[in-house]
Amino acid sequence: MKLQRRICAYSHAIDMIQYDGVTGAPGNTAANRGASLSVLSEDVYRMTTSEETVRLLETLDGQKEALSQKEQRMVHLLYKELRDMRKIPMEEYVAYQALVVEADDVWHTAKNTSDFPLFRPYLEKIFATQKRFAEYIEPDKDPYEHCLSQYEEGLTVGTLDHFFDTLRTQIVPLLSAVTKKPTVDDSMRHGHYPIAAQEKLSRYLMELMGLDLGHVGLAVTEHPFTTSLGSHFDVRITTHYYEEDFISSMYSVIHEGGHALYDSGSADDLAYTVLDGGTSMSIHESQSRFYENIIGRSRAFCDFLFPKLRELFPESLRTYSAEDFYRVVNKAEPSLIRTEADELTYCLHVMVRYELEKRVFAGELEVGDLPAEWNRLYRDYLGIEVPDDRRGILQDSHWAGGLIGYFPSYALGNAYGAQFLARMKETVDVDGCIAQGHFAPVNDWNRKHIWQYGQLYTPAQILDRVLGQPFDPQYYLDYLRDKYTAI
Amino acid sequence: MKLQRRICAYSHAIDMIQYDGVTGAPGNTAANRGASLSVLSEDVYRMTTSEETVRLLETLDGQKEALSQKEQRMVHLLYKELRDMRKIPMEEYVAYQALVVEADDVWHTAKNTSDFPLFRPYLEKIFATQKRFAEYIEPDKDPYEHCLSQYEEGLTVGTLDHFFDTLRTQIVPLLSAVTKKPTVDDSMRHGHYPIAAQEKLSRYLMELMGLDLGHVGLAVTEHPFTTSLGSHFDVRITTHYYEEDFISSMYSVIHEGGHALYDSGSADDLAYTVLDGGTSMSIHESQSRFYENIIGRSRAFCDFLFPKLRELFPESLRTYSAEDFYRVVNKAEPSLIRTEADELTYCLHVMVRYELEKRVFAGELEVGDLPAEWNRLYRDYLGIEVPDDRRGILQDSHWAGGLIGYFPSYALGNAYGAQFLARMKETVDVDGCIAQGHFAPVNDWNRKHIWQYGQLYTPAQILDRVLGQPFDPQYYLDYLRDKYTAI
Repeated sequence: MKLQRRICAYSHAIDMIQYDGVTGAPGNTAANRGASLSVLSEDVYRMTTSEETVRLLETLDGQKEALSQKEQRMVHLLYKELRDMRKIPMEEYVAYQALVVEADDVWHTAKNTSDFPLFRPYLEKIFATQKRFAEYIEPDKDPYEHCLSQYEEGLTVGTLDHFFDTLRTQIVPLLSAVTKKPTVDDSMRHGHYPIAAQEKLSRYLMELMGLDLGHVGLAVTEHPFTTSLGSHFDVRITTHYYEEDFISSMYSVIHEGGHALYDSGSADDLAYTVLDGGTSMSIHESQSRFYENIIGRSRAFCDFLFPKLRELFPESLRTYSAEDFYRVVNKAEPSLIRTEADELTYCLHVMVRYELEKRVFAGELEVGDLPAEWNRLYRDYLGIEVPDDRRGILQDSHWAGGLIGYFPSYALGNAYGAQFLARMKETVDVDGCIAQGHFAPVNDWNRKHIWQYGQLYTPAQILDRVLGQPFDPQYYLDYLRDKYTAI
Repeated sequence: MKLQRRICAYSHAIDMIQYDGVTGAPGNTAANRGASLSVLSEDVYRMTTSEETVRLLETLDGQKEALSQKEQRMVHLLYKELRDMRKIPMEEYVAYQALVVEADDVWHTAKNTSDFPLFRPYLEKIFATQKRFAEYIEPDKDPYEHCLSQYEEGLTVGTLDHFFDTLRTQIVPLLSAVTKKPTVDDSMRHGHYPIAAQEKLSRYLMELMGLDLGHVGLAVTEHPFTTSLGSHFDVRITTHYYEEDFISSMYSVIHEGGHALYDSGSADDLAYTVLDGGTSMSIHESQSRFYENIIGRSRAFCDFLFPKLRELFPESLRTYSAEDFYRVVNKAEPSLIRTEADELTYCLHVMVRYELEKRVFAGELEVGDLPAEWNRLYRDYLGIEVPDDRRGILQDSHWAGGLIGYFPSYALGNAYGAQFLARMKETVDVDGCIAQGHFAPVNDWNRKHIWQYGQLYTPAQILDRVLGQPFDPQYYLDYLRDKYTAI
């Protein structure tokens, strides 16, 4: 327990310094943060791989039967992490921590100036390091599968190829049918929405969703994200405001709010242990995208929220109705930016990234050729031309932060969410609650079945427990078909 | 050098978490920060007092002649810190770190609700712990003098008693003469100054003062302060905005900007060593109050700045002149709040705090009796009634943060600054530069004589080098007399 408290405190420090780097820090301080982060991550490495820790975990692992289920899971996660860590030479681990800090800083500049060559050497190093680390840890496994399983235990390329094929064969014809319909007028997204009113909307949504603002904060960053600091008692979400379009920030807040609900929903006795927080990225995304899309873009929620929106933005929304709002936020068409994509095309964006990561890892593609391949796949999958790297290969922060193998989680999360919804509807009148702005019954269901367990169960165990039947992407495809056919 | 890098990294982490606590953190997260800060400060304690560190510093201390002047000073400071630290039992040190985090949180609430009894038990513990620590470290010394010398090496109660007596005997009659003149109309301080325009003013002032915004950030807090994160390459200042009065925040920005100039002015090769940053609190305050008052409240600066203020606040300042502005910011009258006090009465506020600290340490005064004694001294020294503890004993954050013995630094800093000014004027046309908004010659002088050295010299050595004659408070008293007689 003491070791876990220390790990949490060091994570707090490291995450805090990184969070500050993208929120309050002055522009030229990345190298200064890098200096401190190198020292702290070196000490984390020492602490988690010391002979004392090894002896401790070996001893505990050898006496499993004397431990509670919770303690067994703690030992399992710590021991696995330890064995993985000890396979990476410390200097390489520390150098990598400094690399991602610097890379993130360079990525910001590269994105703003649409300058891929500036970012390229960093991305090359990140891909190379991730691959090398994968080979250190699981030399007999396909390195990309190792990356995938960091975010989703046991996920394979075979499973994903099949999953994405299933999605593609049904989504592409559905999208084609939808785009044949008359275009939705989205002039609402080119209005004037004062930032101060959008900030009020953010607070309103967070409270409506049931987030405890005493424990969940909001800040503004280039790219929205969620992070926990030290424990689930301090969670931060971020958003990005655009004066001409409140919808972008609004759905970022709901999406990140979903992550924050999951993170802060861990049982309190999991705090300051490795079991605190979400069990995998796909289960995390199942929650964030559940709130963002299944709830947030539902007719019930749009009807409920519209009067509040009219109150906050009386001038710009004067001529629009709740029906207009519902149609605008569900407008489906091929587009450039993943985070702004509609539910129908979203998974196609993910597939592009999955294909590229897989091929770079397989040595079939050079990092330098990524922009051209990115643009080709957007043409292939979405039938759209990418005008510049800012809106292409440079749009996401993930690779700059070393998150390779993460993107498929979004697509899996979408699909899990739809199957969770079917289960939830067996006992909760979801639309009825949402139509009245009552999130409590929905939150209670998620807390009871998912949030409270933190990392006590593996993602596969959570799915088993919640679904009572195997995962089946057809729930998601049916959900999309029903929704978009009706629209 | 490696040990110093580690100390800086841990300071970065700890200061960052504390900074976050008063800037971005959600309201109910103090306990969570406390949990992480306990662990980190325990590790700092271990690191700086380990047998390895002791051997290292003993060895270096034994070979002084082989070290450069800079290295000797590093060893001196580290070894002194080590010897002091080892006299404090680790559990007490760690418990104290957690105490001040919690106390600061409670102080915020207590101040807002003017509830001294809520804060009292924390303040009692802080006074008691500081006294106990002083007795551990220098058992033969007066504990309050130990506290004083933490902020100003070698400062004694005798020196301070004499210094404050000199000030009081000359300031009180001067104040009495000034307050007999017709009252200055300060209706300017009850206007409407939009926060957005005040934010622009803050940025403008920071740039005007020569702060590099790539390395110096600004945030909003209850109580303005300055902190460095990891090194002088990342400095943060804070301010507090009031919609009806831009003058309060404006002078906070200039004051904290002065601290930030000093901190970020350390020679770059001092970064990540214990020599980085200012050498003592009084030298620090000599810089912050030099920029705030000697520069910031000078006629030259007021004349220069007023057109910019008119541009930022056209409506509220329409009927006022630069002369009005100069008079308002130099209005001298007994008042309740130290940070808002004019130059003439400021030192009287400090004397109240000095008297109280001294008497609590001497056992002549109970913490529970502080509010009544505070109010009595305000009546005695300033002739003013304190209406509530919010504007009385609870106004400053210092005690909540464990800063006992700090306040005299402000008064010493005022006096040092006036004597520095006399020296500076021998080679720099200070008023001429400021009248044109040129801070560079003033900054260059301060950098050359003070900033660049960081902690390489003791405060006494800095005074010696800069002044070339003994410190003499008469410079300050003459400055006050000349200024206020003219007004």
